[in-house]
Amino acid sequence: MPRSSTAFLFDLDGTLVDSVYQHVLAWKEALDQEGVDLSVWRIHRKIGMSGGLFANILLRETGLDITTDRRERLRVRHAEAYNRQARENPIRPLPGAREQLAFLSEQRIPWAIATSGRMETAAPNIAALGVDPNVVPVITRDLVRHAKPDPDLFIAAADRLGIDIVHSLVVGDSIWDMLAAQRARALGIGLLSGGYGQGELERSGAFRVYDDPADLLRHIDEVAARS
Amino acid sequence: MPRSSTAFLFDLDGTLVDSVYQHVLAWKEALDQEGVDLSVWRIHRKIGMSGGLFANILLRETGLDITTDRRERLRVRHAEAYNRQARENPIRPLPGAREQLAFLSEQRIPWAIATSGRMETAAPNIAALGVDPNVVPVITRDLVRHAKPDPDLFIAAADRLGIDIVHSLVVGDSIWDMLAAQRARALGIGLLSGGYGQGELERSGAFRVYDDPADLLRHIDEVAARS
Repeated sequence: MPRSSTAFLFDLDGTLVDSVYQHVLAWKEALDQEGVDLSVWRIHRKIGMSGGLFANILLRETGLDITTDRRERLRVRHAEAYNRQARENPIRPLPGAREQLAFLSEQRIPWAIATSGRMETAAPNIAALGVDPNVVPVITRDLVRHAKPDPDLFIAAADRLGIDIVHSLVVGDSIWDMLAAQRARALGIGLLSGGYGQGELERSGAFRVYDDPADLLRHIDEVAARS
Repeated sequence: MPRSSTAFLFDLDGTLVDSVYQHVLAWKEALDQEGVDLSVWRIHRKIGMSGGLFANILLRETGLDITTDRRERLRVRHAEAYNRQARENPIRPLPGAREQLAFLSEQRIPWAIATSGRMETAAPNIAALGVDPNVVPVITRDLVRHAKPDPDLFIAAADRLGIDIVHSLVVGDSIWDMLAAQRARALGIGLLSGGYGQGELERSGAFRVYDDPADLLRHIDEVAARS
């Protein structure tokens, strides 16, 4: 039985694993191949949201037709470029990520992972964290109708833990995590480890902002846990 | 004779060319090879400053010895990784960069480029912009004693144009550009195209912040030029 009625719902990329910049350049490569000329920083500001929504917005901003074929090719090319890069330079957990998760387990505070990514790119990162998806709820984009900034992923994660989303803390690195947290009436905790600015996270509703999981763990008493 | 007593002094990476994220991952690769385990976002927040200073800070933060050999290996490995990436996925000018420079030339407003990078990585980017370093002053890290956040690069650029630095506008994407501008008593104009947040640029003294060179050109009357 969990000791706590609070749950921690973690985003994956940029929050637990150091993979955001690799995702950004993998999207850049996929978009280049599709003839979509978009500055890298604009891609950075859009990722973390649903990949489909992301592709729709990019194609709309650049005036290209949004066909099912084009969206599917973007998805496949991004996954190929990302997985190739990850083989060359393995993606690593962020500092303190494993310790943060171990701490919550020790304290019997329930936690789950909720990511806008699909299992095809998320699986190796989850393995690198030492997380067993048969034990810990891992909600990927494949499992819900709408990904972030819709709150469905976090709501599904809280449901799987049997905790009310309103009593949950959503930990994420992007403004889409913070917006999804607000839409679900959860509290959002922002981490700078995805490369967004503190001001961006605060303006999108972060209740508190830390550097990375190690910094969150050092300040854990500020947000929830008591040992 | 220049019509204006104002000059525009441009940073290169992230300000005129879309190369910051590639530099970040090239540094990540060089640091990994050197056994320095540093999160990617922390590298992003440090680049744009002098490469030597950057290496010193990183090595100091990670507790490794700062030897001349190690600094030199980092420099060489970063340049190799960056140039390899740039061959695979060519670096492109940011939207509006060429138009911005052409506009200033038409208006006979002097401008120059001042970058913390060395000519070995800057040369292809300057070529991609269509800039001839025999005509336009291009001050690289090789030419001054201290790079950003020291103001030497921008002061040297203003000197070459024969304009007082105090009457100059420094256009850059990183907080190091804004700090160097303040130290030189110039006005700093921040661009978001290097992937830093608006709040970070404002807090480091940006007089005004725009998306990218195209957005600066659309708002040029706010900061200097009159046609």
